[in-house]
Amino acid sequence: MIAFSKMHGLGNDFMVIDLISQRASLKPKQIRALADRHTGIGFDQLLLVEPPQRPDADFRYRIFNADGGEVEQCGNGARCFGRFVFEQGLTRKKHIRAETLSGLIEIRLQEQGMVCVDMGLPRFTPAKIPFITEAEALSYPLEVGGQTLEIAALSIGNPHAVLRVERVKTAKVGRLGALIERHPRFPARVNVGFLQVTNRHSGKLRVWERGAGETRACGTGACAAAVAAIRQGWMESPVELQLRGGLLDIAWAGDGQPVLMTGPAVTVYQGQIAL
Amino acid sequence: MIAFSKMHGLGNDFMVIDLISQRASLKPKQIRALADRHTGIGFDQLLLVEPPQRPDADFRYRIFNADGGEVEQCGNGARCFGRFVFEQGLTRKKHIRAETLSGLIEIRLQEQGMVCVDMGLPRFTPAKIPFITEAEALSYPLEVGGQTLEIAALSIGNPHAVLRVERVKTAKVGRLGALIERHPRFPARVNVGFLQVTNRHSGKLRVWERGAGETRACGTGACAAAVAAIRQGWMESPVELQLRGGLLDIAWAGDGQPVLMTGPAVTVYQGQIAL
Repeated sequence: MIAFSKMHGLGNDFMVIDLISQRASLKPKQIRALADRHTGIGFDQLLLVEPPQRPDADFRYRIFNADGGEVEQCGNGARCFGRFVFEQGLTRKKHIRAETLSGLIEIRLQEQGMVCVDMGLPRFTPAKIPFITEAEALSYPLEVGGQTLEIAALSIGNPHAVLRVERVKTAKVGRLGALIERHPRFPARVNVGFLQVTNRHSGKLRVWERGAGETRACGTGACAAAVAAIRQGWMESPVELQLRGGLLDIAWAGDGQPVLMTGPAVTVYQGQIAL
Repeated sequence: MIAFSKMHGLGNDFMVIDLISQRASLKPKQIRALADRHTGIGFDQLLLVEPPQRPDADFRYRIFNADGGEVEQCGNGARCFGRFVFEQGLTRKKHIRAETLSGLIEIRLQEQGMVCVDMGLPRFTPAKIPFITEAEALSYPLEVGGQTLEIAALSIGNPHAVLRVERVKTAKVGRLGALIERHPRFPARVNVGFLQVTNRHSGKLRVWERGAGETRACGTGACAAAVAAIRQGWMESPVELQLRGGLLDIAWAGDGQPVLMTGPAVTVYQGQIAL
């Protein structure tokens, strides 16, 4: 039997397995079976805690989607990862360095189940996003379904388009999200954030995720929206964003500085399963 | 912390709690929170094992839907209930009598995780289903969306309409299911089975469930389809039905006899949760 925890960050949910004190090897087919919400455990991502491969890391943090494929980054997952290694007694540190496919990330445990993750530097260079344009700018006009929308384009490890809207409640997230996701100027497709600015420090956000549609909460999407809003002078750091699944707090000191995301990490239950 | 098991029967999934050796009281709001597939455990129904209130029962078997409401019967749940009480050591019997809101049911544990449940007598009296018609018959013409369909109508604790189709693969389950479910001749609405007869002892079945739409497997729906097919001379007992979620075996010796349903019950994992 393998012990695991079921956790979530704003409704983005995870099966988390300690592979330091236990051994298991999971094939993609097994991950897909475990991810089934009726016949398995059910989760958006599987998070594995492994011994680090580099000396400056405390742990290796691996992320698998429900389809069994390994991915680079998951902001909500990073908060749960941090809480898990501390709660399970795998470390006594509250400042944890985790090695991921996209480099080292730093996770800080705070009071009352809140966790802060250093998400690294946002990238605006069009080729790095990737986004097709003649010159880099703060925002870009984009032809979508017969109208011209003004969008910001940036990368938080993954590509994001951010669109400011009057009201998230009535925004055409489904229709515009699907069109922008597959717009030819985003050759690797794109996540699309619809941001309503409430005041200088708070806003509401809905996110259309690449390959998944609208989700309850996208950690990198919240970072992208806050950075785009700060950079264009609509908002000031720190920014509190209300997503469908709950609140995230984003701090960004400007160009050349990392994005810090703070939000909840919840342990739902402990489980044991035969693998 | 409360211990529980997560189980499923053909993909119809359950949280099962032993309330004989543990104490807990669950309000509808808590059940809805536990049923959430992202922030809770996730299940179609919660099954509770309690001490019996009548002397001829081994256990009291209570069933709650994901909305927190208590319901009378669940065939897939009854198989999991039987396996649970035996696996958890709550009984050494393999023939278990469980008290439900709709009376005593008998559950027999078989080899390889298979469980047989006595689902009681099918009822054909129109007023008992309920179904509005002038006289009881083997089948009834029903006007649906401009065409006349021939359906059987019966109750397996809950109301069922059974429609024979050429091929389940191309049957208009969504369109016809929704129309028949709310047909004025079924005043309490109805579950709708689409049965393809393959040979005298086997068939394929898709079920549109009242209030839920098409599901992976409906235990009472399989009983209703088999009984309707046996009664009209299309098939002979025992009948093996292929549902989307897997196989169920239904035996029925004819009028005045109970329906016996045999199928799998799977324990997925053990869990502990703070309630």
